[in-house]
Amino acid sequence: MPLKLYIAGPEVFLPNAREVMKEKTALCRKYGFEAICPGDLDIPPSPTKKGFGLAISKVDEEMMNSADGVIANLTPFRGIAADVGTCFELGYMCAQGKLVAAYTNVTAGHYERTLDYYNGKVEKGADGHTRGPDGLSLEDFEMFDNLMLHGGVERRGGHVAIHSAAPDALYTDLTAFEECLKVLAENRIAPDEGMRPEELDASNDD
Amino acid sequence: MPLKLYIAGPEVFLPNAREVMKEKTALCRKYGFEAICPGDLDIPPSPTKKGFGLAISKVDEEMMNSADGVIANLTPFRGIAADVGTCFELGYMCAQGKLVAAYTNVTAGHYERTLDYYNGKVEKGADGHTRGPDGLSLEDFEMFDNLMLHGGVERRGGHVAIHSAAPDALYTDLTAFEECLKVLAENRIAPDEGMRPEELDASNDD
Repeated sequence: MPLKLYIAGPEVFLPNAREVMKEKTALCRKYGFEAICPGDLDIPPSPTKKGFGLAISKVDEEMMNSADGVIANLTPFRGIAADVGTCFELGYMCAQGKLVAAYTNVTAGHYERTLDYYNGKVEKGADGHTRGPDGLSLEDFEMFDNLMLHGGVERRGGHVAIHSAAPDALYTDLTAFEECLKVLAENRIAPDEGMRPEELDASNDD
Repeated sequence: MPLKLYIAGPEVFLPNAREVMKEKTALCRKYGFEAICPGDLDIPPSPTKKGFGLAISKVDEEMMNSADGVIANLTPFRGIAADVGTCFELGYMCAQGKLVAAYTNVTAGHYERTLDYYNGKVEKGADGHTRGPDGLSLEDFEMFDNLMLHGGVERRGGHVAIHSAAPDALYTDLTAFEECLKVLAENRIAPDEGMRPEELDASNDD
């Protein structure tokens, strides 16, 4: 039985979402994995918009519960940070001790993007924290996004792939996605050998 | 033993983060809960920035593992969506079957904020989806943010508090936070009675 990977990312919002999911599914198969993609299943109709949204939430969580791991596309989405739905899903899979990997198609790191957000207008305060004009501090941990995301993946031994995609291929360039698959295939272990939260430490910094 | 609530939210980035955390801790106590706040513990020093970030990730996950529930501040942060670290944490706690509640200090919903992001320049395509000029579709589920967040909380019977805070009190106004505490106190149950993923359904739409 191939390991099942949940495909998390904002590509579900693309006009050609199904096509991208098919490509991702084919790549998973190439490396010996089975892809589980949100949107693959028919969502039961609902009398209300909110009811339909809740039904999608249910199906997506069930898909994650049935998966052995996740590859999360954390490319910035409508702003400087990753898609929030994908971040929820990454946290969900980390808590279950599943295999995790993540990628971004933007090479500028979290600190650099936040600096851009403030047009460089940041100042170092008396408390040692660098802050924007709104007073909010900037994380500067040489990570690609918030430390819970980058840290959550790396501390579990998960791979983080960082790639520079062309602007018109920000959510369709699968170079970094494939890099995650390669590493997962090289380190393939049985699902029940995945690490539990209590086995983790922060010792794998580089 | 009072139930322990992990306090998730972008207020950790405020200049007066400790003060806000003290206020939140006092409110938790008022309703019979114990607050577990990121930043409460000393983080061990590290020779690298990244090592320090990984150490914080470890401490925060351990705090979540020891908590019985979470109140997530999902007020939009540096853009139109919630803080991505908080979203990771909400997903993490949902997967563990813990008590969940969430609030936002902005009343404009997810669809409305995304419409603003595109300056109203959206179009309905042949596939029935409303899309921005970049082709990305807009979620329109009458939710306050991405469906995995709003859905993840509501499907577990968790309370969602929506409040309009003054712009200068966006991350310090605790009206909605206190509303979550009130509801959690009213529905207080033992930690081991929390719902597991397999017990959930999407039937509680309104």
